[in-house]
Amino acid sequence: MALLESTHRRKNPLTGRWVLVSPHRNNRPWLGATEAVNESVLPKHDESCPLCPGNTRANGDSNPDYKYTHVFRNDFGALTPNESEQSQSLESDNDLFIADEASGECRVICFSPKHNKTLPELEHDALHEVVKTWKDNYTELAQHYECVQVFENKGEIMGCSQPHPHGQVWAHSHLSTEIEAEDTQQLTYFKKHGSAMLADYVQKEQADKTRVVFENEHWLVVVPFWAAWPFETMIVTKDNIQNFSQLNDAQTDSLAQALKVLTTKYDNVFNCSFPYSMGWHNAPANRSSDEQHWRLHAHFYPPLLRSATVKKHMVGYEMLGESQRDLSAETAASILQAASTTHYKKTAG
Amino acid sequence: MALLESTHRRKNPLTGRWVLVSPHRNNRPWLGATEAVNESVLPKHDESCPLCPGNTRANGDSNPDYKYTHVFRNDFGALTPNESEQSQSLESDNDLFIADEASGECRVICFSPKHNKTLPELEHDALHEVVKTWKDNYTELAQHYECVQVFENKGEIMGCSQPHPHGQVWAHSHLSTEIEAEDTQQLTYFKKHGSAMLADYVQKEQADKTRVVFENEHWLVVVPFWAAWPFETMIVTKDNIQNFSQLNDAQTDSLAQALKVLTTKYDNVFNCSFPYSMGWHNAPANRSSDEQHWRLHAHFYPPLLRSATVKKHMVGYEMLGESQRDLSAETAASILQAASTTHYKKTAG
Ligand SMILES: O=P(O)(O)O[C@H]1O[C@H](CO)[C@@H](O)[C@H](O)[C@H]1O
Ligand SMILES: O=P(O)(O)O[C@H]1O[C@H](CO)[C@@H](O)[C@H](O)[C@H]1O
Repeated sequence: MALLESTHRRKNPLTGRWVLVSPHRNNRPWLGATEAVNESVLPKHDESCPLCPGNTRANGDSNPDYKYTHVFRNDFGALTPNESEQSQSLESDNDLFIADEASGECRVICFSPKHNKTLPELEHDALHEVVKTWKDNYTELAQHYECVQVFENKGEIMGCSQPHPHGQVWAHSHLSTEIEAEDTQQLTYFKKHGSAMLADYVQKEQADKTRVVFENEHWLVVVPFWAAWPFETMIVTKDNIQNFSQLNDAQTDSLAQALKVLTTKYDNVFNCSFPYSMGWHNAPANRSSDEQHWRLHAHFYPPLLRSATVKKHMVGYEMLGESQRDLSAETAASILQAASTTHYKKTAG
Repeated sequence: MALLESTHRRKNPLTGRWVLVSPHRNNRPWLGATEAVNESVLPKHDESCPLCPGNTRANGDSNPDYKYTHVFRNDFGALTPNESEQSQSLESDNDLFIADEASGECRVICFSPKHNKTLPELEHDALHEVVKTWKDNYTELAQHYECVQVFENKGEIMGCSQPHPHGQVWAHSHLSTEIEAEDTQQLTYFKKHGSAMLADYVQKEQADKTRVVFENEHWLVVVPFWAAWPFETMIVTKDNIQNFSQLNDAQTDSLAQALKVLTTKYDNVFNCSFPYSMGWHNAPANRSSDEQHWRLHAHFYPPLLRSATVKKHMVGYEMLGESQRDLSAETAASILQAASTTHYKKTAG
């Protein structure tokens, strides 16, 4: 198929943005900066870690002796709750200086008491609790905020400032730029086709199989046709689900399994703790519509390109023009398909 | 003014995307990864550098003994010229798998023969030649391609793979995602107001002065109201100019001066060679319209946040939601205003 070999662009239907694909460029030599691999072996518990059980944080609070997850308000949150009742537009007397007030809440989710266990290294019951914590925090915050962003930055190169495995939740009333774009695009598709974009997409990828990394009863893990990052994936619900609060126990369990498989495969691609930013896109909350155009999904954006130390830089052309990739989505999918579901640390031992 | 102290969002009128501003978060401690500062002193000429005069590149070509700039086709370009005559749509029988052929040309521009001189360290006549080279390459490539992206990645942390100071040009017939967004937004503004967005914006910033870093007869250097990166700036034409090919000698000279001032101030913020990605947004070429809605401008996206080693990470929330900044645009502008126009290496000596 010509598509895979010659230079082309693919369009992301969720955002409307394109990505430039240059498969012939795979073999370009790399002389630039390389990333340090963090091979330091972490202890199970670190006395100085503000996320470990029993320790005291900078603001004086003590963490409980938690067994699964632990959630607390971010001491340095980018969003803080609104003091005034009414959100107001700050500057909008013209089309050049547009500003709005923003308020909300930022939380930290410790994935487990273990300072040294990342998601793929957790047992199934612990992963089940992580998903349940996402669900519970989403459900609570969605009562007050339209937009509840659950995410994880993993690894130092992703700006993660605490090695203890954790994720975050940022909740606010306005729709973020990405959620607004995805909402508009999915609604346009729904009005045209009478079906949800991601429901149709799941079916086509299931039938084709080329880009499918893993599937179980309730979830599909796929390298999207329009992936921008080298090993970008999505986890998409197979069910008619718009947000976390709708998850039943079987779907929660099935997601814990999918998470385990995907993150294990990631670590096995380069035998390292695979860095990424990942996060969940729920339908906006508290609207009168039934959100049938939306399907709950996660995006994983991992930066590594061809080893534990060589990452893709989304820089100059990408910032000024559009995302660019060398490795095609299909090649990336075949590498992830071939990666073992047994974590390299277990096979190495 | 409430705007500067409490959390808010600002809208980028060129792209339609928002940025979340959290000024209260300036004082958050940083325990994460730091960047290595490259203090290595480079030689004037490096025998093994594929960009230095007289040296031979991987493909066997020899660089001439050039005195100012030198331009050659990128040996590993992401875009290659089209073999077939007609560009064709590859997959578009539905709204999910959309792909188009893409072809074009990628060039490298060596800024000067000196292996160790970045833009702020070049003399005025050398900077004048850099601008002229941008203009000449734009003018030639715009005869064949609608979209000619001139840019520079500076510094290892920006994925720059060769220390010899250089920029790039990527030219293609389709409009990139960013150019398409800016084109649509500027056209909408023009139809509504009967004037060009950036012409109006220049006037308002000139009058206000808060965010103006430098101006001369033909150019304004400003931290845009909607800046996302900590020290993001724009260089905008004050004249009715849509693309590089229209630049006269006075405008070229004036731009060389503005470049010298801005890049010198950047280096002086943290007394280091300030990394960034920068690039020029010209109006799309070869259209029948006169492009009066457009003004030629450059974006500078530098990642450093509070020292030569601590950068802003546009990760988790930023990738899943929208860009976020701590430092306000006004604070960043006041730091750049205060920065000296004499390069720190000159004062240090
Ligand atoms: O062309 P270079 O300097 O080898 O490569 C750099 O710039 C390109 C254009 O912005 C990017 O696509 C690459 O990821 C980056 O490493
Ligand atoms: O919240 P953290 O881990 O301290 O900070 C990290 O994640 C945030 C949310 O993606 C980003 O805004 C920061 O730039 C990044 O360093």
